[in-house]
Amino acid sequence: MAKVAFIGAGSFGFTRKLVTDMLSFPLLRDAEIALMDISDERLEYIKRAVDRIVDEGEYPATVTATKNRREALQDADAVICTILAGGVSVWRYDIEIPKKYGIDINVGDTRGVAGIFRALRTIPVMIDICRDMETCCPSAILLNYTNPMAMLCRAMQRETSIQVSGLCHSVQGTAAMLARWIGAPMEEIEYTCAGINHMAWYLDYEWNGEDAYPLIHKAITEDEDVYNVEQVRNEMYLAFGRYVTESSGHNSEYNWWFRKRPDLIAKYCTDGTGWNPGEYAYILHEYQKRETSWKDAIIEWLENPEPLDLTRGHEYAAHIVNAYVGGDPYKFNGNVPNKGLIDNLPEDACVEVPVYADRSGFNAIHVGPLPAQCAALNNLSVACEEMAVEACLAGDPTGVFHAVAYSPLTASMLSLAEIKQMVNEMLEQNRDYLPTFKHFKV
Amino acid sequence: MAKVAFIGAGSFGFTRKLVTDMLSFPLLRDAEIALMDISDERLEYIKRAVDRIVDEGEYPATVTATKNRREALQDADAVICTILAGGVSVWRYDIEIPKKYGIDINVGDTRGVAGIFRALRTIPVMIDICRDMETCCPSAILLNYTNPMAMLCRAMQRETSIQVSGLCHSVQGTAAMLARWIGAPMEEIEYTCAGINHMAWYLDYEWNGEDAYPLIHKAITEDEDVYNVEQVRNEMYLAFGRYVTESSGHNSEYNWWFRKRPDLIAKYCTDGTGWNPGEYAYILHEYQKRETSWKDAIIEWLENPEPLDLTRGHEYAAHIVNAYVGGDPYKFNGNVPNKGLIDNLPEDACVEVPVYADRSGFNAIHVGPLPAQCAALNNLSVACEEMAVEACLAGDPTGVFHAVAYSPLTASMLSLAEIKQMVNEMLEQNRDYLPTFKHFKV
Amino acid sequence: MAKVAFIGAGSFGFTRKLVTDMLSFPLLRDAEIALMDISDERLEYIKRAVDRIVDEGEYPATVTATKNRREALQDADAVICTILAGGVSVWRYDIEIPKKYGIDINVGDTRGVAGIFRALRTIPVMIDICRDMETCCPSAILLNYTNPMAMLCRAMQRETSIQVSGLCHSVQGTAAMLARWIGAPMEEIEYTCAGINHMAWYLDYEWNGEDAYPLIHKAITEDEDVYNVEQVRNEMYLAFGRYVTESSGHNSEYNWWFRKRPDLIAKYCTDGTGWNPGEYAYILHEYQKRETSWKDAIIEWLENPEPLDLTRGHEYAAHIVNAYVGGDPYKFNGNVPNKGLIDNLPEDACVEVPVYADRSGFNAIHVGPLPAQCAALNNLSVACEEMAVEACLAGDPTGVFHAVAYSPLTASMLSLAEIKQMVNEMLEQNRDYLPTFKHFKV
Amino acid sequence: MAKVAFIGAGSFGFTRKLVTDMLSFPLLRDAEIALMDISDERLEYIKRAVDRIVDEGEYPATVTATKNRREALQDADAVICTILAGGVSVWRYDIEIPKKYGIDINVGDTRGVAGIFRALRTIPVMIDICRDMETCCPSAILLNYTNPMAMLCRAMQRETSIQVSGLCHSVQGTAAMLARWIGAPMEEIEYTCAGINHMAWYLDYEWNGEDAYPLIHKAITEDEDVYNVEQVRNEMYLAFGRYVTESSGHNSEYNWWFRKRPDLIAKYCTDGTGWNPGEYAYILHEYQKRETSWKDAIIEWLENPEPLDLTRGHEYAAHIVNAYVGGDPYKFNGNVPNKGLIDNLPEDACVEVPVYADRSGFNAIHVGPLPAQCAALNNLSVACEEMAVEACLAGDPTGVFHAVAYSPLTASMLSLAEIKQMVNEMLEQNRDYLPTFKHFKV
Repeated sequence: MAKVAFIGAGSFGFTRKLVTDMLSFPLLRDAEIALMDISDERLEYIKRAVDRIVDEGEYPATVTATKNRREALQDADAVICTILAGGVSVWRYDIEIPKKYGIDINVGDTRGVAGIFRALRTIPVMIDICRDMETCCPSAILLNYTNPMAMLCRAMQRETSIQVSGLCHSVQGTAAMLARWIGAPMEEIEYTCAGINHMAWYLDYEWNGEDAYPLIHKAITEDEDVYNVEQVRNEMYLAFGRYVTESSGHNSEYNWWFRKRPDLIAKYCTDGTGWNPGEYAYILHEYQKRETSWKDAIIEWLENPEPLDLTRGHEYAAHIVNAYVGGDPYKFNGNVPNKGLIDNLPEDACVEVPVYADRSGFNAIHVGPLPAQCAALNNLSVACEEMAVEACLAGDPTGVFHAVAYSPLTASMLSLAEIKQMVNEMLEQNRDYLPTFKHFKV
Repeated sequence: MAKVAFIGAGSFGFTRKLVTDMLSFPLLRDAEIALMDISDERLEYIKRAVDRIVDEGEYPATVTATKNRREALQDADAVICTILAGGVSVWRYDIEIPKKYGIDINVGDTRGVAGIFRALRTIPVMIDICRDMETCCPSAILLNYTNPMAMLCRAMQRETSIQVSGLCHSVQGTAAMLARWIGAPMEEIEYTCAGINHMAWYLDYEWNGEDAYPLIHKAITEDEDVYNVEQVRNEMYLAFGRYVTESSGHNSEYNWWFRKRPDLIAKYCTDGTGWNPGEYAYILHEYQKRETSWKDAIIEWLENPEPLDLTRGHEYAAHIVNAYVGGDPYKFNGNVPNKGLIDNLPEDACVEVPVYADRSGFNAIHVGPLPAQCAALNNLSVACEEMAVEACLAGDPTGVFHAVAYSPLTASMLSLAEIKQMVNEMLEQNRDYLPTFKHFKV
Repeated sequence: MAKVAFIGAGSFGFTRKLVTDMLSFPLLRDAEIALMDISDERLEYIKRAVDRIVDEGEYPATVTATKNRREALQDADAVICTILAGGVSVWRYDIEIPKKYGIDINVGDTRGVAGIFRALRTIPVMIDICRDMETCCPSAILLNYTNPMAMLCRAMQRETSIQVSGLCHSVQGTAAMLARWIGAPMEEIEYTCAGINHMAWYLDYEWNGEDAYPLIHKAITEDEDVYNVEQVRNEMYLAFGRYVTESSGHNSEYNWWFRKRPDLIAKYCTDGTGWNPGEYAYILHEYQKRETSWKDAIIEWLENPEPLDLTRGHEYAAHIVNAYVGGDPYKFNGNVPNKGLIDNLPEDACVEVPVYADRSGFNAIHVGPLPAQCAALNNLSVACEEMAVEACLAGDPTGVFHAVAYSPLTASMLSLAEIKQMVNEMLEQNRDYLPTFKHFKV
Repeated sequence: MAKVAFIGAGSFGFTRKLVTDMLSFPLLRDAEIALMDISDERLEYIKRAVDRIVDEGEYPATVTATKNRREALQDADAVICTILAGGVSVWRYDIEIPKKYGIDINVGDTRGVAGIFRALRTIPVMIDICRDMETCCPSAILLNYTNPMAMLCRAMQRETSIQVSGLCHSVQGTAAMLARWIGAPMEEIEYTCAGINHMAWYLDYEWNGEDAYPLIHKAITEDEDVYNVEQVRNEMYLAFGRYVTESSGHNSEYNWWFRKRPDLIAKYCTDGTGWNPGEYAYILHEYQKRETSWKDAIIEWLENPEPLDLTRGHEYAAHIVNAYVGGDPYKFNGNVPNKGLIDNLPEDACVEVPVYADRSGFNAIHVGPLPAQCAALNNLSVACEEMAVEACLAGDPTGVFHAVAYSPLTASMLSLAEIKQMVNEMLEQNRDYLPTFKHFKV
């Protein structure tokens, strides 16, 4: 009987979806679902929600809820992490302080100045979770959904012995979007996608064994509607010849080309018709709205008399857990250490590549070199991420400054002196959330 | 009896200085100095100049002059290259076209959009020279002074069997400047400098065996005059903790932080008191002035009745040639292929590291990893340079676009679409100088 | 509809078994089975045999037979290679000439002096097959069963663009033997096996998630019958702490420790109770017997009125082909180029590691470093194999001598001068079979 | 004023020669020579000897003698190590126990079973010396002459922060021998020699810029006297095409080809006319003789009324120390960590390559790959050495067994079980000299 622990179980959307998926596998229908959160209130709601799923599915699973992390982790086979370290009240400064310096951030959860500060706050918590796992369930796999993905996974993979893979929707989501654009059923599509989280590249994308890039190119260049869905990413594709994962809004803040001038924001980051064309502080605003509405939403869900939809969804996590406890091997794109996987990214950096999960754990696939024009962008991001992770682990403000100074959007707008000032302001604002730091000034 | 060939001998300053230096070595005083240039007029003047040096020094050397490159190269032991491929008339567009797009370039001879186009024009010529050497003097060393140093040397090192090292004054020049700042006699200074051309870092800098960086730091932060000599480089030092080679003007165009906004140019690139604080088109204007004055200058030199100063100067080249023909080994900073030399720059890239010249040729020294914040800037430049060299060798306009798109100053100012337009305009302007290209549009 | 080509289809055992397996997969039941052999007689028999399988299984498959290799390969999805290049009449000298020098060889199909000469004869043929595939079916996978596995695969992987994986029974066979020894059902066993062909190591071997090596150790040291099954391999396990693949006889000729003295052969290579304890020329003698009996055997099979057993067997090949044409991904141990897979074996050497086959082809898994005492033996063998492959491709007798001189069994018995003499005798004997060589004397 | 410490100063020959050499350099004539030994008696004699050198040379140097190692090391610029850890009374078993098992050892100071046990005894002492240096003179260079060179240097380079280079006469000695054979004055010879200690290869060997290997080949194959000087090494050259360093006797015990059969010893290791053709226990016997004669010899030297010869000799050490304290750079072959130096030997292994000593310390030169047939022998030795060093540092008897089991001469003669028995006997005999070990049985 498998045990799956959810750390940060109060992320209602994730937990409900992943529990639903998992229980749909014969090997997991009798699993122990161990829910853990630091909020009593959220824990109570999610317990009720998972109980409802188990009841309606008539599964022989058991559900436990606890604020004691080690209790939840004890003897687990797999751990799902969906925590948020520090709430919107501190997170907002990741977006709002840079804005004072002219840096216009759309999401700020991945990289760049906002992502780096989010990492500084979150890495110590993630490492604590892994330390607990080393004690309570050393051979369990950890599937991480918390952002910033690459920096968090890198820190855990570097510092602890836990098998960690970061998971993200963007690979399968983008692949499905491209398939729609060319009118292909997804099951006839085969691709190799590799790079780093939120910035992985479809190295090949085939429809029934034939290269489908010419069709994608035609759609983007000839169909205005297709162009408009993802203006930033389509421009990147037109420049570099490979499609990149994640939304246009996200990508607009990972490089220099789209958000440094107001006219460019207006041109590329405003009118896109996809889910996130690039609005300032888009996700922060979403979270701020949820702060008042989440309770109503979960109550409504719990009281909704309609039967639940218990069919399996498209997230990777349940398939991976099923493979690890002995089910069919499962191929996904995971965030794992670069041990000979992508030749032209740094050894040991956290890369996003095809991985087979099976009973032996994660089996990452050798990809080879990325095209030079794709590797260049990844490499600069990796350099920033390596400096930020090292700075966090060493508690070194100067390393934070270096990481931000090289972050493309910041680098394209500010001088070194201005960057130093901004970083100092942010260090000061975050001082209560940075346990590894002893001083807060570069 | 050694033979040294000067290709581009009409670079009067270089040739006179290097010939003077070489003849001062006992092993080279009877050398054959083979002067080669494509201009009859320049060749005639330089022949007279070198003859004067030989006469005044009463050296048993022989001097030949020829427009036939293979004749000059035949059986040479060492070759000095100081050519300029394409004159000011085409070069000016490397500076002036980007300016139309807002890119304000100071020198444009090394990297960035101007350096890349200079490389596109010059690489084919350099490879031709090496091909001739493979025939006429396969074991001769080639000492290259022509810019853009890193891209040219990389292309020759990648494509030919000739032992090439690029040479540049900036390492010894900067070291001497730092010594002056701290009041140290140069002979008591020891340093390790490594990175890429014009962007190498003093990893350590010692005065009589003690770390002198604290003294340098004190001078920069407490002495306004010292700060003002090199505003850009001092700011870089204050941010990254290692001093970088080449002038502030040069460095201001290699990254994003100093030239992208008019106020930053005013603040950092205008009032510096060093030789090149960062004025727009500084070297281009110098060359344009020389176009009318060079003849008067050489005639004046030839007719000047004062005896010549024949003491040996500080250029590396003569020492290296002397070492290669059997004299004392000589340590210098050369531009050589990264064969296990700098751990965190790409294998085979052209790096600038300590090299011992001796009878066996160039013996490059393993340096180890650069500090992360230094490697990050070098790596991005290397990525651009690798893409540009590959694009040149393949005759691929798209690769040129990629190389320019990642060049920091351009990346910090333009969108991808704007960069593409600029690159196309420059390709069109250069079409007569790009023999490897079949089309000129991205 | 898939097409599978069998090159060397006259290897009756392999072809019948693999065809039976393949047709048992829904995706392959209507496949085209293209049989190719250089012998009319064998081709006729195997055509009848495969027809019988198709008929009894009532499969909608089509069967073709041809001596024209390109015809068989045209548009194939997968190619199975089971050829023997040069028959027993030449092969015998691989065993008999060394015997004159005191080298007592048991099988001689993998490495050592006999394996090297077999490679010299076979590599040119294998490369020809790949060249035909590059023309006729460039995206087909090639599954090779022909020995010497590592040298042949290395040559094809180095010289051609075809996706090749070598396949061997020894990994699953040994794993099953160990399971029997400890009384475990195979489906509860999980292992990671990596190294080189016939000399791969079970890095871990778990029964229901627990390390089973203590049980294996107990069986070997406490149960005389278990010890006696595999004397050589059990001694190797007792020395090095990891179990190795392939029979004791095979292994006894891959190192220095078991066959160099008559008393050691008597002690370790004679009385083992496994299928191949180590008898001199064991496989050669088997083949010599078959030379007269094969026809009777196939006729008997064809005329046997008993219904065929069409259940799927344990060979990897059919599963792999099924995965490649769109069936379930399949994990196997394949012989693939070492692209970042085993850290302490040479890059690009042919290694045997876990591989996932799926629609994208072969996805090799990063293994990490082998234990030092395992890597040492593999590395010496790889060194010999690399020298032999290079010598074959260059047609260089000296390289053959080097490869043999380092082969452990030879090295432990002869002087360099004796080895040179033996190699010269063998080169002379093989001169008609070595198309890449122009002279035959070291 | 420089300070040079001699650890193991009672190695009279070395100390007298090196002191004589050092004082001949202007920069070192006023040096402090700090003599340290564990024997009062030897210390007294060497103090008198060095005083005599200083007096006769009328040098302003100061000489101190102490049994306190830290006192000798305090503030030293360079340290010379010539210790012998454990005397002939224990060392004899390194030779005599293997002999009982049939292993006939000539020197036993480098590698193989005898070298490995010598390393086990000596590594802890060497690391202690480095630990003292880390305290007393952290930036001093350590020049080590104690054997087994590669294993000792590797252990120090791996475990401590001290700059260590091992030094050996064999590179310059062999080069001079080859020059004599072809009648060339040594000053017209240039070579590149690289590999591992006592097994480095002259990759090129030029006389006035021309490849001299054809002349060497002619001498060896046509002049019987030349052949007879170095039978083993000449055979190795004839097989592998590159000449190897160290005597024939030494080399005969590093591989499988010359000492495993009595007839081969008779043929190759007995009648050579060089200084060490390969006699059993040659050096051990020499040392045993010296045990009774050393005192007379040093007294005779001290009382000899002839004036000393104070001209500089051919050892590397004094030149290196001179370069490190600011004299001319000096190129030598040193034993240093393989940081990108020899491409096809393991990273970080101790390799012997060209090194430039100068004020910055040791500057090792990138060599590239060795020829495959040379790398193969080096790699196997490195594998044994890495296992032995790891076993020593971990105190692991099993690792010692592995290292011995792969040592070629042992591997060519014994079974694994016999090797285990021999290793156990030696561990038992050495138990008082192995501080890192807790048990002494494999």
